[in-house]
Amino acid sequence: MTKVIADISMSLDGFVAGVGVDLEHGLGIGGEGIHDWVLQRPRSDADQAVLDRGFEETGAVVMGRRLFDIVDGPHGWDDEVGYGHDQDQSVAPPCFVVTHNPPAHWRLGARFRFVTDGVVAAVDRARTAAGAKNVVIMGGAHVINQCLTNGLVEELRLHLSPLLMGGGARLFDGVRPTALRQREVIVSPRATHATYDVVAS
Amino acid sequence: MTKVIADISMSLDGFVAGVGVDLEHGLGIGGEGIHDWVLQRPRSDADQAVLDRGFEETGAVVMGRRLFDIVDGPHGWDDEVGYGHDQDQSVAPPCFVVTHNPPAHWRLGARFRFVTDGVVAAVDRARTAAGAKNVVIMGGAHVINQCLTNGLVEELRLHLSPLLMGGGARLFDGVRPTALRQREVIVSPRATHATYDVVAS
Repeated sequence: MTKVIADISMSLDGFVAGVGVDLEHGLGIGGEGIHDWVLQRPRSDADQAVLDRGFEETGAVVMGRRLFDIVDGPHGWDDEVGYGHDQDQSVAPPCFVVTHNPPAHWRLGARFRFVTDGVVAAVDRARTAAGAKNVVIMGGAHVINQCLTNGLVEELRLHLSPLLMGGGARLFDGVRPTALRQREVIVSPRATHATYDVVAS
Repeated sequence: MTKVIADISMSLDGFVAGVGVDLEHGLGIGGEGIHDWVLQRPRSDADQAVLDRGFEETGAVVMGRRLFDIVDGPHGWDDEVGYGHDQDQSVAPPCFVVTHNPPAHWRLGARFRFVTDGVVAAVDRARTAAGAKNVVIMGGAHVINQCLTNGLVEELRLHLSPLLMGGGARLFDGVRPTALRQREVIVSPRATHATYDVVAS
């Protein structure tokens, strides 16, 4: 059955990107470190398995407009690198972009759809597209926070990276108190992958 | 060899206490949830082992004045409950309290010493007292953040509890970018206990 999952890499001090995010620095200054478990080679078997399973089980993706602008930008996604990083992009899931103003033109193809009536509608459309697979809210922080605030998130998957960023885009900012149930924790050499059920908020 | 360790329980959104910390509510409103792995019964074997080992290896404790006021307050520590919660308090380590104004009187005994010349001096005095055991900086957030800023922390032990607090005392606030090495992660039914070496900041 489809689950709605917020799935994101985070520093121990709660940042999902560094300061200074722009089209040149999509993860912000020093933000690559938050994604070492994906980006550093050789990738560990444990990290590869987490990445494979996440990709396999995802039927649709929800993202914010600023994140879309980065992935559609000059240093963004291409035929080789996209959702799930270096997974087979020919079978990558459709992406629903939450935005007030859809772009007139964009570089990446029809796999991207623009939703102008908010996160609830975006998750709803993603759910329809996902079939039996899951909906993954991939970020940025603002969209995940909005989805948590609207009670849309059923599962939280945090990839906790061993660093303190000291600043940047903070996950969970303004989110209300929420009870979680720790369901699975996978430890790799470069991260702790922790999965939680959202119990109540 | 003595190591200086910041050891604290934290919600996934980075809080070590709730809002409204006072002598009645030492952990703030809802802050007990951050310490479920210690407080809930029956305690799991994994959590008990983490608690036992932490207590066993600690030769001296550093804490801030606000935390001291709570542990010395009417709902604070006693002969049965203290550092390490329900560990044997007759062999509990000395506590060095960072404060500008030492109290004239206090309820708890001579195990508490007051250091008026800052966190560097407090850690220094704790190190001398610890002998071959470790120095643990137990909190609050402000003192741990100060110790990180001053490059005093060699190891970070986070007990990550499955909840979002939504507000309270934030760990790592204002701390500079810091590289860590994930060394050990112990998963219990109620928390993820993650230990990191501080590599560089």
